[in-house]
Amino acid sequence: MMLEEISSNKMFAGVQAHFQHDAESLKCKMRFAIYLPECASKSSPVPVLYWLSGLTCTDENFVQKAGGQRMASILGIAIVCPDTSPRGDDVADDENQAYDLGLGAGFYINATEKPWSSHYQMYDYIVDELPKLIEANFPVSSKKSISGHSMGGHGALTIALKNPDLYCSVSAFSPIANPVNCAWGQKAFSAYLGSDQTLWQQHDASLLMKASTHHIPALVDQGLDDDFLKEQLHPKSLISAALSNNYPLILNQHQGYDHSYFFIASFIENHLCFHAQHLQDSQ
Amino acid sequence: MMLEEISSNKMFAGVQAHFQHDAESLKCKMRFAIYLPECASKSSPVPVLYWLSGLTCTDENFVQKAGGQRMASILGIAIVCPDTSPRGDDVADDENQAYDLGLGAGFYINATEKPWSSHYQMYDYIVDELPKLIEANFPVSSKKSISGHSMGGHGALTIALKNPDLYCSVSAFSPIANPVNCAWGQKAFSAYLGSDQTLWQQHDASLLMKASTHHIPALVDQGLDDDFLKEQLHPKSLISAALSNNYPLILNQHQGYDHSYFFIASFIENHLCFHAQHLQDSQ
Repeated sequence: MMLEEISSNKMFAGVQAHFQHDAESLKCKMRFAIYLPECASKSSPVPVLYWLSGLTCTDENFVQKAGGQRMASILGIAIVCPDTSPRGDDVADDENQAYDLGLGAGFYINATEKPWSSHYQMYDYIVDELPKLIEANFPVSSKKSISGHSMGGHGALTIALKNPDLYCSVSAFSPIANPVNCAWGQKAFSAYLGSDQTLWQQHDASLLMKASTHHIPALVDQGLDDDFLKEQLHPKSLISAALSNNYPLILNQHQGYDHSYFFIASFIENHLCFHAQHLQDSQ
Repeated sequence: MMLEEISSNKMFAGVQAHFQHDAESLKCKMRFAIYLPECASKSSPVPVLYWLSGLTCTDENFVQKAGGQRMASILGIAIVCPDTSPRGDDVADDENQAYDLGLGAGFYINATEKPWSSHYQMYDYIVDELPKLIEANFPVSSKKSISGHSMGGHGALTIALKNPDLYCSVSAFSPIANPVNCAWGQKAFSAYLGSDQTLWQQHDASLLMKASTHHIPALVDQGLDDDFLKEQLHPKSLISAALSNNYPLILNQHQGYDHSYFFIASFIENHLCFHAQHLQDSQ
């Protein structure tokens, strides 16, 4: 598992770096970003927060705009930011290059339908391949939490709910919380998974939370001036699922905030503190 | 003085907005960004930090990458980020579209030479027109400080040193501290000001600091792994000038940091606290 360093910059006494590698599960080169706090060392490995970005994003958006590194440096947490889909000349894209299907829109699931299935295996990449790569190459422990925004909020919630033994906590900003009932989710799931909706349901945060039997701490922040709130995000489905299943979900709704990284930056430190608490509890 | 709002996003309980307006001094439309903390109101106006960006930047870089808004919201300071040059179809650019002359490279001086002199009057814009516009349209006081990066660090230092009555404090990251002695400065000054080096000397931070009679607090941070340190920045000239004139300059040199916004983000909160202290002292 060879890693090629693309860039490395000192930041808050630690290092913000980007790497690329040949991803087996995705059959293409993939980039990821990692922030390593100064305190990370082989003798004192740090836990990792995986950050999953939203539609159209890459491994760069969170790194440049969220401002998460300050608190990560204080708390001693690494942050790993993968890309949002497989990439490369032989990777299928939507025929109209739509922003919400294909490149930049992997939806963190394993596609079963052609032409997507040969590369779009983001679920396996995030759950298995990437953590193995990170843990083999950096001074980090196997303790991990997961967070994300919008499509990445969907990814974080569904991946954590399906793998509660792997993650100490999960959080999301403005997640696509009930994708089987919104246009973004229906478009992606029908393309990647086909018409069998029982497959879709296995990647729906609200349905997974309703059926969850192993509850890990979950935090969701949602802006109430988010242009996508009414049509695409459906946080009410998530809170209904949590209430019906006694799931300890914290849902913070914020007047005046929108879907942008300005919203994420405003509350990312709360999320980092939330994860730090649960990463510590489990040590 | 009409202002047109381009965008507005809630951030850290305040507002991060971009506007455009017809700039008289530059004879073109100009964009600027403003962060207004929640506490700003007509009855309780806040002081302003002007941020001058470096070569190739616009009104967006600092806003997206520096992470200054968190501390600005805590301290109750507005941050105004102008663009780095005049813009528009009739504004001259370097014939080879070099990154260090013309568009994106106004150097915060008033050009006297053709074809630059008709629009490149960034000194007047920053010192006079923009503060008047800001103070007439937003809940801010006339108390101000100024900071910047690289070319903008040169701009902040020279403008503050030439106008110590206007600013409570000045700071810079990786400033072009002695432009008459580096390639960037020589290229820009010879184009914009012509061959008379006595004109250049009026916009050289080291020379101005050496001759300063009214000392306002000054803070400079410099990364020691900055690729431009040896050839372009010359912080040693600045510290020599300060020592020779008992100027109270704080120069922090940082092992391992480079010229990027990752460096700025790591120390911007120190700069905001420095300015807040002096903006308060002077009230």
